[in-house]
Amino acid sequence: MSISLRKSRYTYENLIERKAFTVNVPSAAQVKIADYCGIFSGRNEDKFARAGITAVKGDFVDAPYIKEFPMALECKLSSITDVGIHTHLIGEIMDVKVEESMLDNDGMPDIHKINPIIYAPEIQGYFGVGEFLGRAFAIGKEIK
Amino acid sequence: MSISLRKSRYTYENLIERKAFTVNVPSAAQVKIADYCGIFSGRNEDKFARAGITAVKGDFVDAPYIKEFPMALECKLSSITDVGIHTHLIGEIMDVKVEESMLDNDGMPDIHKINPIIYAPEIQGYFGVGEFLGRAFAIGKEIK
Repeated sequence: MSISLRKSRYTYENLIERKAFTVNVPSAAQVKIADYCGIFSGRNEDKFARAGITAVKGDFVDAPYIKEFPMALECKLSSITDVGIHTHLIGEIMDVKVEESMLDNDGMPDIHKINPIIYAPEIQGYFGVGEFLGRAFAIGKEIK
Repeated sequence: MSISLRKSRYTYENLIERKAFTVNVPSAAQVKIADYCGIFSGRNEDKFARAGITAVKGDFVDAPYIKEFPMALECKLSSITDVGIHTHLIGEIMDVKVEESMLDNDGMPDIHKINPIIYAPEIQGYFGVGEFLGRAFAIGKEIK
């Protein structure tokens, strides 16, 4: 799992100190909470309390995840690379947690149940997931 | 721009030799071409010819981009990190090319016109972009 952060962010300090982070996937219905978390800093306010979300201690790393979001990944920091004004961080995924009601019949995460948010930074817009287009490593075989 | 590749891939060899790569964004209507390119190796066949796409020499880096796809990024390789069976590569974006008909009124890439593909690797499925959910750095301000 790779992410990029500015060094000035509160998240960055915590992440470097704990050598761990979690990636929490909100559903479309939680888009306001996600946006709120991106606007305000945990340095100045208790974001969990204000957004009505709950911090749960990670099982595998020293970082909290968000109880109310349908999916969370626990990551152990493994690499740090400076890239311009951001720092690029790689984490080894130690655990993937998905709400049981969000799984499909094969026990895999169902993208339409989780209904994650797509972010288009160039226009600062959030979007949902659209229609199923096809099966990977399959539909391309039609090209001969 | 960061990507991950297996060292055994033909793409990896080319990328390391040229110290450059392009990221080409297909539209939903081109999903079979994208999948075909992911299944077969350029070591064994001329993928451009077979898929009916055209390689154009990059303007800023020594790598080709795909003429028929609505968006392409030219990237100069800047960092290489081994991560398990994959290698994680960071490229500095030297140019962003977007088909003019795919821009919005402000001259920015329009996500619904480009209509890119979302890949869900856990179920090997391709999906389209869904409905607009809200404006970033804006809707979260409603949380007080």
